[in-house]
Amino acid sequence: MDGNGTVPVVEADQVRVVQKFGGSSVADAESIKRVARRIVATKNAGNEVVVVISAMGDTTDDLMDLAQQVSPNPRPRELDMLLTAGERMSAALLAMAINDLGAEARSFTGSQAGVITTGTHGDARIIDITPGRIVTALADGDVVIVAGFQGVSQTTKDITTLGRGASDTTAVALAAALKADHCEIYSDVDGVFTADPRIVPGAQRIPEICYEDMLELAANGAKILHLRCVEYARRENVAVHVRSSFSDKPGTWVKDINYEELGMEQPLITGIAHDRSEAKITIVGVPDRVGEAADIFTIIAEADINIDMIVQNVSRTQEQATDITFTLAQSDGAKAIAALEAVQERIGFDKVVYNDQVGKVSVVGVGMRSHPGVTAKFFRALAEAGVNIGMISTSEIRISVVVDIDQVDVAVRAGHTAFGLDSSEQAVVYAGTGR
Amino acid sequence: MDGNGTVPVVEADQVRVVQKFGGSSVADAESIKRVARRIVATKNAGNEVVVVISAMGDTTDDLMDLAQQVSPNPRPRELDMLLTAGERMSAALLAMAINDLGAEARSFTGSQAGVITTGTHGDARIIDITPGRIVTALADGDVVIVAGFQGVSQTTKDITTLGRGASDTTAVALAAALKADHCEIYSDVDGVFTADPRIVPGAQRIPEICYEDMLELAANGAKILHLRCVEYARRENVAVHVRSSFSDKPGTWVKDINYEELGMEQPLITGIAHDRSEAKITIVGVPDRVGEAADIFTIIAEADINIDMIVQNVSRTQEQATDITFTLAQSDGAKAIAALEAVQERIGFDKVVYNDQVGKVSVVGVGMRSHPGVTAKFFRALAEAGVNIGMISTSEIRISVVVDIDQVDVAVRAGHTAFGLDSSEQAVVYAGTGR
Repeated sequence: MDGNGTVPVVEADQVRVVQKFGGSSVADAESIKRVARRIVATKNAGNEVVVVISAMGDTTDDLMDLAQQVSPNPRPRELDMLLTAGERMSAALLAMAINDLGAEARSFTGSQAGVITTGTHGDARIIDITPGRIVTALADGDVVIVAGFQGVSQTTKDITTLGRGASDTTAVALAAALKADHCEIYSDVDGVFTADPRIVPGAQRIPEICYEDMLELAANGAKILHLRCVEYARRENVAVHVRSSFSDKPGTWVKDINYEELGMEQPLITGIAHDRSEAKITIVGVPDRVGEAADIFTIIAEADINIDMIVQNVSRTQEQATDITFTLAQSDGAKAIAALEAVQERIGFDKVVYNDQVGKVSVVGVGMRSHPGVTAKFFRALAEAGVNIGMISTSEIRISVVVDIDQVDVAVRAGHTAFGLDSSEQAVVYAGTGR
Repeated sequence: MDGNGTVPVVEADQVRVVQKFGGSSVADAESIKRVARRIVATKNAGNEVVVVISAMGDTTDDLMDLAQQVSPNPRPRELDMLLTAGERMSAALLAMAINDLGAEARSFTGSQAGVITTGTHGDARIIDITPGRIVTALADGDVVIVAGFQGVSQTTKDITTLGRGASDTTAVALAAALKADHCEIYSDVDGVFTADPRIVPGAQRIPEICYEDMLELAANGAKILHLRCVEYARRENVAVHVRSSFSDKPGTWVKDINYEELGMEQPLITGIAHDRSEAKITIVGVPDRVGEAADIFTIIAEADINIDMIVQNVSRTQEQATDITFTLAQSDGAKAIAALEAVQERIGFDKVVYNDQVGKVSVVGVGMRSHPGVTAKFFRALAEAGVNIGMISTSEIRISVVVDIDQVDVAVRAGHTAFGLDSSEQAVVYAGTGR
């Protein structure tokens, strides 16, 4: 490590920008050259540029397959050593392509870039950034390329990864550490939309969105930005520009918006998110004794499973038993069922019912705080569209419902129309909004 | 860097071994598991084991292709960043496979292992090894896996590579730094032979060979060990055991042999090497003035081309001109011709003749020092076999001749028979002796 270094303030007419490009933007040699041209254009416009890069296309999946061939259960430390090779390769290739365009570029691994993390392999958190080498390279006039998704453990000095898709977080963390003007996240979509344009043709690009709304959208199925990245941006107050790497059009700015100061009203509803990756588990006939629910959720927590919504049905007085329903990620389903069935006898419930044919639809907007009628309006729209609500959960700025998976699209469209979000023009999007 | 650490002396009954496996030994998941079993067997026999690993199969070539697709002339710094991903991947995969066999293993990059080098990207030299992390891991009872071929520049802290095939050198350097008992180099051949068994069916495995002979064989076309690795082993007095990763048979020990002390006679001829990778350039009609030869070889040196043999024909007195012939690597041929033709007018020679249809055959043996008749015997054998000698060069312990490429095999066999090296049994070798 080169130490923290002092971060010099950028000169008045010069802007320091962090740009992040995802795997689909650097899927092959041609894409890499295209991204290189965009970076050099930003540099030549007089900016200092730091680029965070993901692994090329399917590299990470391919490396994961290779690991599985060698070992059914690879050690997380070694898996991190393996997987981080992906970003290292794309970083070096991108630097070569930039050099070919006559600009100076230097690639750095996460460790070299000073991304210091916890030691949790596969899901490490950034503790600190010590960007001494980046600052030096910028001072030399170089474009800096940083391998995303990776860092180095503060205690063991082993290579760590930050979890899938975490290159966004690397970018925001670097932007904060480098006091960058802003952070640009390039992907294959034009920005954040009021709903998924594949479901709602009249969905509109949101030009500006506050951190709170973006957090709720990201936490409830909008795949455009990772939750942890948005949390980091809010905490460090980094303005994030989400935009397409295939066009020069403005995208969506995620930033602190002081509506009062701007003399604007908060938007009532910013957007509709949906999520088809959850499942619903119902524990039928739980004895209606004090502490049973706590018992059950302790077991789930000990199995390292995050749950989302919880509903406990009113006690069926005759049987002195109750049903508990909760939602969780489908990928945790089998683990949860096994954990519950292991204690079925001790707790004495009847059975566990698993259903992954569900979806969650969420209406999000900070303006909701001061407008009590939103829930009623949403539910009326769902009813008129014939959507049956399975579960409900709300926050101060969000209303979520669980519905049958077949009714997700209908519910999204109904909400979008009810809150006046439909545009007359069809949104322009590129293939695949997931990343 | 964790600092040099002190290298604890291994307990009396415990041996510290460095094992190096080449790319063909870890070409796929099955090969990696096979190598893992061998390593665990060595560990379970009570040894401390450090493994140096090359990139899987064709990984390095594939990465090189990728670089070429992105940039016609990639920066060496970035190329090193890219290529070193290969060993990093195989090191992690091998560690996973060893862990699966119930042994503890930890992989390290060259930089993490403390391989400190010069800053010459693509061809860095090892300056120092600071094996603090390796020593700690060994003390913890772990098998240590080190990514070969790579290190970190002492001055810039950038990732460097040591040149193709340099994982052998990494292994020997680590063996020296760790005061290992010996270094085992595993490949797909059974050891060092008196000649290439594909040419001479009666070639014999050499059980022991001294550094000097091995240096001459390696420098003159024997591909079993890289020259720099042998030089390092000699300088640091590391005993190297060259053996097959496909069998348990002993291979060839390369080590310091004190024949006098052993009461043995030095072998007259240890082996015959050949090399088809050279080319011959003749500069015809060089004006016979003082300094012309120096001029020409300065031009060649400035083009960063190494030459091997040089012959200057006797001056053709009538024309006051002479011919200069030298050999060089075929890969440098085009560069040399361009450099020479650029100065043709100034120096005033007639023309440059290039011939890559040549081969070099070398007879090597430390015993030659005290036996003056070797040259005569070799040349007589070549003459009897009908081989025409093009150029000759000799050292204290080697005689080399350049012959037509069609006569290389005949010359190798003639020398092998003349010096009594033929065995009655056919040597056992596996597919491909090159690595």
